[in-house]
Amino acid sequence: MGNKETLNISIMDKVLAPVKNDLAEFNRHFKVSMKSHVRLLDIATSFILKQKGKKIRPTLVLLTASLCGGINPRTHRGAVMVELLHTATLVHDDVVDQADKRRGFPSINAIWKNKASVLIGDYLLSKGLMLSVSSKDYDFLETITDTVKRMSEGELLQLEKTRKLDIDEETYFKVISDKTASLIETCCYIGALSATENQDFRNNAKRFGSLLGLSFQIKDDILDYEGTTKLFGKPIGGDIKEKKITLPLIYAMQNAGAAESKKIIKQIKGISQKDNVDSIIQFVKSNNGLKMAQEKAVELASQAKELLKIFPSSEYRESLEYLVDFVVSRKS
Amino acid sequence: MGNKETLNISIMDKVLAPVKNDLAEFNRHFKVSMKSHVRLLDIATSFILKQKGKKIRPTLVLLTASLCGGINPRTHRGAVMVELLHTATLVHDDVVDQADKRRGFPSINAIWKNKASVLIGDYLLSKGLMLSVSSKDYDFLETITDTVKRMSEGELLQLEKTRKLDIDEETYFKVISDKTASLIETCCYIGALSATENQDFRNNAKRFGSLLGLSFQIKDDILDYEGTTKLFGKPIGGDIKEKKITLPLIYAMQNAGAAESKKIIKQIKGISQKDNVDSIIQFVKSNNGLKMAQEKAVELASQAKELLKIFPSSEYRESLEYLVDFVVSRKS
Repeated sequence: MGNKETLNISIMDKVLAPVKNDLAEFNRHFKVSMKSHVRLLDIATSFILKQKGKKIRPTLVLLTASLCGGINPRTHRGAVMVELLHTATLVHDDVVDQADKRRGFPSINAIWKNKASVLIGDYLLSKGLMLSVSSKDYDFLETITDTVKRMSEGELLQLEKTRKLDIDEETYFKVISDKTASLIETCCYIGALSATENQDFRNNAKRFGSLLGLSFQIKDDILDYEGTTKLFGKPIGGDIKEKKITLPLIYAMQNAGAAESKKIIKQIKGISQKDNVDSIIQFVKSNNGLKMAQEKAVELASQAKELLKIFPSSEYRESLEYLVDFVVSRKS
Repeated sequence: MGNKETLNISIMDKVLAPVKNDLAEFNRHFKVSMKSHVRLLDIATSFILKQKGKKIRPTLVLLTASLCGGINPRTHRGAVMVELLHTATLVHDDVVDQADKRRGFPSINAIWKNKASVLIGDYLLSKGLMLSVSSKDYDFLETITDTVKRMSEGELLQLEKTRKLDIDEETYFKVISDKTASLIETCCYIGALSATENQDFRNNAKRFGSLLGLSFQIKDDILDYEGTTKLFGKPIGGDIKEKKITLPLIYAMQNAGAAESKKIIKQIKGISQKDNVDSIIQFVKSNNGLKMAQEKAVELASQAKELLKIFPSSEYRESLEYLVDFVVSRKS
């Protein structure tokens, strides 16, 4: 485990180096924003605060603001808001994971946890929104409420398609654009909104975030197929076991033709968590699914870097370029 | 079933008579507000729309606006927003109920429904907020985001206390003020905000909503103890089986003294869904818990009606007075 983890930490260290002090300030603001009057909430939020995580979303807000003219108090409010929203969605995600892991009759404890997760997520979301309302950051509110809507729509569209297994390339991009890229896009847009009135800067920052988010998710979906054991996160083939059809499989089916694809879909329909999915992984590999998906991720990453050229050269721009390269070249 | 249901419908008909046409207009707006691009969402929302319900919250927005000067387009936006929020919380509540009803290993279907419920709730909440952002109804946003926060805090505080069984009268009022009364308060406040600049009108409408919400919840908690079978909603004693300590029991324990109360708490600690709770209901009755709780509900209802006297006499004021009386005198 050591090597890759160390590598990832050192890469993130490099990315966030130019805004290191600002990120420390962010952490203080974030901690304050989580305070409540309910002990159960404070226990939950202090647990969340201890987990730390990579803070990639606030880092993006801080870097794009720096790129566009400089960090100011509004930038910090935006960074706290996106992290509260991100945390809310993680807590809401947890509702399902817990159900999944349970065995036998769901215990009172598990039901209790599910209820608490929904409520804690709602609480964190409203705290983030209140921050923007009370500071009159209405432009943030407009983009963030639209993002909440897109994230839920994207997840629901994926859920619908997971049941029917009829997802095509266009729908795949709609799903990942809404469920993943929308929040990354919003982080970069909010950074720009807080720091500049230049409309081209704002547009490019926003589009940059969208492309970064898309390539990140495609790479994530590729990594689900690669390697023989996976060191972090989900095990290899996890998506297939959940009947999630992602870009590598979509491309492989395009290349293999209708008859072969039909057989694969039939196989996935009958799959369960315990089944071996090696033959499907092999199908994706031998039909160029991984190669084509990687090419797509790299293509979008290049477009993202291209958009950064509008900004003057700086350590912030370098950081973002470095992040883009890392996102599509990472091994975990 | 027929009689009581008919009675309730005719009472609600009487309450909403002065804003009947406006409510029809509200229904059209509400339907439009639910439209999405995701089929799964449209299926869920059309199911929600079919259930109809009493639409008490938008009715309150419309009645208080009428009371304060008249309904306008902003009133209608406010009514749609509160109903979207209310629906979102109902859908989120459903996450737990479904878990509760399941037997054996949670099926993929049940997990899927839980995940969908969380996401559909998030979607409806963001739609409501977006409506206010895009119309620049920032005063609505301020009150509604605070309400979302209070509702989740109130539910979480109740959840915490349900585990520890150490709820007192003050905490009970904090819980019901946040989880139930806050949204009723917001409905009346938004109605007033949309229709008048008069600060006394706005304050009284808001406080009226709060008192109405409190007496509504106390009566609901009383009804959980009354009768031998309950025609609608939860069965008799449902709260106790869920270890929810509400006002009738709190008062009964105050009257019975420490030793008796300790025994009752011990009994509740060991209770399960299948247990007979007649002895606890008897304890509450014989220690005047129901009587005192009813007196409290009536007292708050009188205060609510008192606040309406600031408004000129009208059919709208009469409707609201009638609603207050009904809330504390209803039998189901």
